Amino acid sequence: MTFVVGVVGGGQLARMMVPPAVELGIEIRVLAETEGMSASLAATAVGDYTDLETVRAFARGVDVLTFDHEHVPQSVLRALVDDGVQVHPGPDALQYAQDKLRMRERLGELGIPMPDWARVENAEQLDAFIAEHGGQAVVKTARGGYDGKGVRVVSAAAQVEEWFLALDEDGRGGALLAEELVDFRRELSQLVARRPSGDITLWPVVESIQRDGVCAEVIAPAPGSAGKVAEMAAQIGTTIAAELGVTGVLAVELFETTDERILVNELAMRPHNTGHWTIDGSTTSQFEQHLRAVLDLPFGATGYRDPWSVMVNILGGPTEKTLDEATTLAMADQPAAKIHLYGKAPRPGRKIGHVTASGEELDEVAFQARAAAAFFQD
Amino acid sequence: MTFVVGVVGGGQLARMMVPPAVELGIEIRVLAETEGMSASLAATAVGDYTDLETVRAFARGVDVLTFDHEHVPQSVLRALVDDGVQVHPGPDALQYAQDKLRMRERLGELGIPMPDWARVENAEQLDAFIAEHGGQAVVKTARGGYDGKGVRVVSAAAQVEEWFLALDEDGRGGALLAEELVDFRRELSQLVARRPSGDITLWPVVESIQRDGVCAEVIAPAPGSAGKVAEMAAQIGTTIAAELGVTGVLAVELFETTDERILVNELAMRPHNTGHWTIDGSTTSQFEQHLRAVLDLPFGATGYRDPWSVMVNILGGPTEKTLDEATTLAMADQPAAKIHLYGKAPRPGRKIGHVTASGEELDEVAFQARAAAAFFQD
Repeated sequence: MTFVVGVVGGGQLARMMVPPAVELGIEIRVLAETEGMSASLAATAVGDYTDLETVRAFARGVDVLTFDHEHVPQSVLRALVDDGVQVHPGPDALQYAQDKLRMRERLGELGIPMPDWARVENAEQLDAFIAEHGGQAVVKTARGGYDGKGVRVVSAAAQVEEWFLALDEDGRGGALLAEELVDFRRELSQLVARRPSGDITLWPVVESIQRDGVCAEVIAPAPGSAGKVAEMAAQIGTTIAAELGVTGVLAVELFETTDERILVNELAMRPHNTGHWTIDGSTTSQFEQHLRAVLDLPFGATGYRDPWSVMVNILGGPTEKTLDEATTLAMADQPAAKIHLYGKAPRPGRKIGHVTASGEELDEVAFQARAAAAFFQD
Repeated sequence: MTFVVGVVGGGQLARMMVPPAVELGIEIRVLAETEGMSASLAATAVGDYTDLETVRAFARGVDVLTFDHEHVPQSVLRALVDDGVQVHPGPDALQYAQDKLRMRERLGELGIPMPDWARVENAEQLDAFIAEHGGQAVVKTARGGYDGKGVRVVSAAAQVEEWFLALDEDGRGGALLAEELVDFRRELSQLVARRPSGDITLWPVVESIQRDGVCAEVIAPAPGSAGKVAEMAAQIGTTIAAELGVTGVLAVELFETTDERILVNELAMRPHNTGHWTIDGSTTSQFEQHLRAVLDLPFGATGYRDPWSVMVNILGGPTEKTLDEATTLAMADQPAAKIHLYGKAPRPGRKIGHVTASGEELDEVAFQARAAAAFFQD
């Protein structure tokens, strides 16, 4: 094709858009934060994505602008839209991914099931919320959190004292988000893609297993989800994508509660870690679908190719093996595992890649993916 | 991984090595013939691959040098090996892909089943061969042929008069290759990969359907090939890879004769059009396996992911649709078809991409792939 897609941000999500862009004949250009990032192969510019002129220059000559992350400021996004740049997802949608308070307010208006929540502007309000919710709460900064950062489980407002102080210093009348600590059976994720023209497509709902606040493993589809759980998750994903006007891929992180409700935990308006399994496990990957979506092209099929896929993240570990040694051992041990590396230097706890295995038997597939990933850790 | 692979040649085979290189964290660099070629995303140099100094400069800093094609001169290859560059496949193996007479001689020594053939230095010898083989022969130039070029079916030596004249002018004592016109039921292809350390892996044998001397369609696996046909093809592929010392992917094009023999038609020492189905249809694609092979890394699994995959080449056609229009129509009509475009401008008869469909039912899969490809043609 003759299309040019510009991606703001040079991380692994931009990197993983490169293979489907190459396959579909789409030219991909990346605005990277620094040299040598994950997506450096496609980086045509290096610069600050909060600087309008930098992003404006990068956007010249692209058919559509999309993102590796949700951090481009609203002011930059809106100026680009005013310039006539096709921005997907657009600022009206992205505001809900950028601000968790705004997201909760909007989902509340839509009647989407969520944990109990409150906007808390000071310690008194938070302590009151904690008292009303069994002595505990999850507190989140409205902006800038990811992978467990900006999220804290507390039993007293004093445990997030510095966050309130930062709000006071900021002086913009901000607040924290307090949420009930949900008694959940497991976490799910519903991946959706939506085109500007309105078409929506969904992958099967998956189970995500977190460790230390970071996604560790994904099982696709979520075991035992066929029927009611899948229907509720699909309904929620479809409603949010449509009502918030999301374009591109949307990940809706969900709690499945012990009393069989499905509650929205977080939103991400971009390809998401819980969708990496689609590269090998679905007919159309989330990265290919994201490119199709932002270019308003017809969607690819989203069925799973095997009954089960399991994705395990590769985290930098305390291992003394080099990355090459670990990879070679993983390849030799698990020839059917699909190993993905992000071109990042290993550091303990840093996501540097993932492994997906697919097949008929969940136990076998999970073993393959875990065994391959373990070589990078131990 | 920290490996750097250099690919000489910027065509679609180099392009299709980019996605698995990105996935495995391998840095890929391409020496392209000109600007704007299929693999331009990874092109770090543009130059003449027949010029030793150009290739030598490109090879600096790569861990291994491999190829998009088999046309790098032996003198260049041998000088690089003398420099200490890891070259895979190496010149000793590549000579048999570069010279069809040498290939026939060597396969004859190995007892590999082939069509009757002869080295013919002049019209008299060729006419004698034709007379001995029912009044017809396939004549091939020893070097430089591909996609039906340098191949002619004749009933008299006069029909290749200019080829003999060119040999005389060349003055290096060359000859043409004459082969019996095989009465074949169908054409097959056995794809093999071999590592420098000796490991060999094979994909299932496939059927390839040619139109006008060009591969039009591939069915994987070859229908009805389980058992004897698959065994013979695997045996031939394994023997050739091992005995010729091939490193990387080897494609052995075969005839299945009406009297149930398997005869070697051609060899290619690189990823091959008859292996494109592996990108979507096998656990490990020929392009990923080629990278693993030339880096002497453990092989990935080569089973098929679905009972059937069908690959149909996209040729530039007389269509009045633009490439973008044709792609959009194909996407809308066949959401399960995997569309691959090579970044090449469409010209009638030019290979500009391919489509693969995979699934349970051969008829359905073949329909999907053909239907999607047809939008680019008509």
